[in-house]
Amino acid sequence: MNSIEIYIGIAAGIITAISLLPQLVKVIREKKAENISVIYLLTLMTGLSLWIWYGILREDLPIIFTNGFSVLVNIILMVLVIKYKKK
Amino acid sequence: MNSIEIYIGIAAGIITAISLLPQLVKVIREKKAENISVIYLLTLMTGLSLWIWYGILREDLPIIFTNGFSVLVNIILMVLVIKYKKK
Repeated sequence: MNSIEIYIGIAAGIITAISLLPQLVKVIREKKAENISVIYLLTLMTGLSLWIWYGILREDLPIIFTNGFSVLVNIILMVLVIKYKKK
Repeated sequence: MNSIEIYIGIAAGIITAISLLPQLVKVIREKKAENISVIYLLTLMTGLSLWIWYGILREDLPIIFTNGFSVLVNIILMVLVIKYKKK
């Protein structure tokens, strides 16, 4: 893998991973999550986990680390969405 | 790339791509999107586009096609979210 591929892969992964942060901030600030689908977050979590597996098989570090970060943000968001939906 | 890698890559991509569909269905059904962050959708779109570029550079078909599908679903969802936020 050459360096331009690594940079674009890392940029792609970082931007995709941090994309959930504005959603997380919005949920924390407004304490509301009625319009957010829990099935969406659960399906996304499954997909991200498979991407990590795929990255391990292909020895593809950008895929492994960035999807790992996405999973962490997704877990925090899911906990908050379920918490604020209950209210 | 061996066949198990292709299958897991395709499964990862398909599940990640269809993960937005439950969110899309929820928005269509409830006609509400106040809690959904447009910055999130815009950032995700940027990240997905970079993934497609990365897939092209690595000649990685699962990455190209599944992120392409994600972009399509993301565009439809963004149009609806902006539409229902205005109401």
